[in-house]
Amino acid sequence: MRLYYFADGCSLATHIAMREAGMDFEIEEVDVQTRLTESGRPFPEINAKGYVPALVFDDGSMLTENVALLDWVAQQSDALRPEDGIPRTRQIEALTFISTELHRPFLFLFFFVGEPEKPAVGGMIAGRFAHIAGRLAGDYLLGDHFSVADAFLYVMLRWAKMSKVEVSDRFAPYVRRIEARPAVRAALDAEGLRTVAA
Amino acid sequence: MRLYYFADGCSLATHIAMREAGMDFEIEEVDVQTRLTESGRPFPEINAKGYVPALVFDDGSMLTENVALLDWVAQQSDALRPEDGIPRTRQIEALTFISTELHRPFLFLFFFVGEPEKPAVGGMIAGRFAHIAGRLAGDYLLGDHFSVADAFLYVMLRWAKMSKVEVSDRFAPYVRRIEARPAVRAALDAEGLRTVAA
Repeated sequence: MRLYYFADGCSLATHIAMREAGMDFEIEEVDVQTRLTESGRPFPEINAKGYVPALVFDDGSMLTENVALLDWVAQQSDALRPEDGIPRTRQIEALTFISTELHRPFLFLFFFVGEPEKPAVGGMIAGRFAHIAGRLAGDYLLGDHFSVADAFLYVMLRWAKMSKVEVSDRFAPYVRRIEARPAVRAALDAEGLRTVAA
Repeated sequence: MRLYYFADGCSLATHIAMREAGMDFEIEEVDVQTRLTESGRPFPEINAKGYVPALVFDDGSMLTENVALLDWVAQQSDALRPEDGIPRTRQIEALTFISTELHRPFLFLFFFVGEPEKPAVGGMIAGRFAHIAGRLAGDYLLGDHFSVADAFLYVMLRWAKMSKVEVSDRFAPYVRRIEARPAVRAALDAEGLRTVAA
């Protein structure tokens, strides 16, 4: 299978999760500007929706949408799979919160809202990070073990740093913990990215 | 259990799904402006995130986020439960697409983007509806049977009509089909809403 990604895009979350799951896969970068894949193919021919992450299986079928991909990756791994029932639902709840309350607003901040509205949208995003910071209990978002929700939250914390959205100091040790993980380092290396921990 | 909702809000999707599942539950409206519940309680005391849908179980625990709620409701019902594995993942993929590519952009269109950016955001939403319209094969979004994804898509089609976002004529029979369902009628009646089919 092959994961299509934008370097440092939200696809980095799926990329990290797949490495944490120990999966065997290839990656291929898509140029954000030209929307051409590394091998020169127009990406909308592969995913008509035009965006990443897109995971193409060996039978040609494709899975998209980070919440669905991360939930699926977690199901493939003994280390990442939550218990069936409410624990899986709680993970989907966390993934959806990150997707709709952080990821989407960031995209609007970057690409859709005008200068007059940027402070309100940035403030909304900061408020959502504060909500999470106030509830971080264990080492990771959902407790004492790394989950696919951490992969997604970590990418959003990278975006916060990149876009100068201020977040709680409580995230500093969290980011260091995430970036100490070999699978995370491997994903960053593969995409040509640096760590961001202070 | 009790479902907190805004009338005609995205919570209508969870409301419809719960009636389709034949669940036993109460509903309580939250005033969009004052954020007070029908019984006069400030809603942020119930859900610190401040938004609906929020489903409070009899043990006091709460589940939020439409994607998680709709996936959970589907699991509770023989009629709505997809097969484990890829069929459930495909449903989560559809729910996430509706959540991030229609629902979130609508909220930005309504509340966050300025007049100069509204046409671009409206165009983006229209493009996402066109993507779905081009892939509607059976009577319902995921095939020949109603799924929780239809509950969510139907609410977004209501919002399209309300906000004058043009959508394909292919959705007209789809909306009529959804609105002919007794559970959908019951949910609309309970929220004091009208059907929207042409």
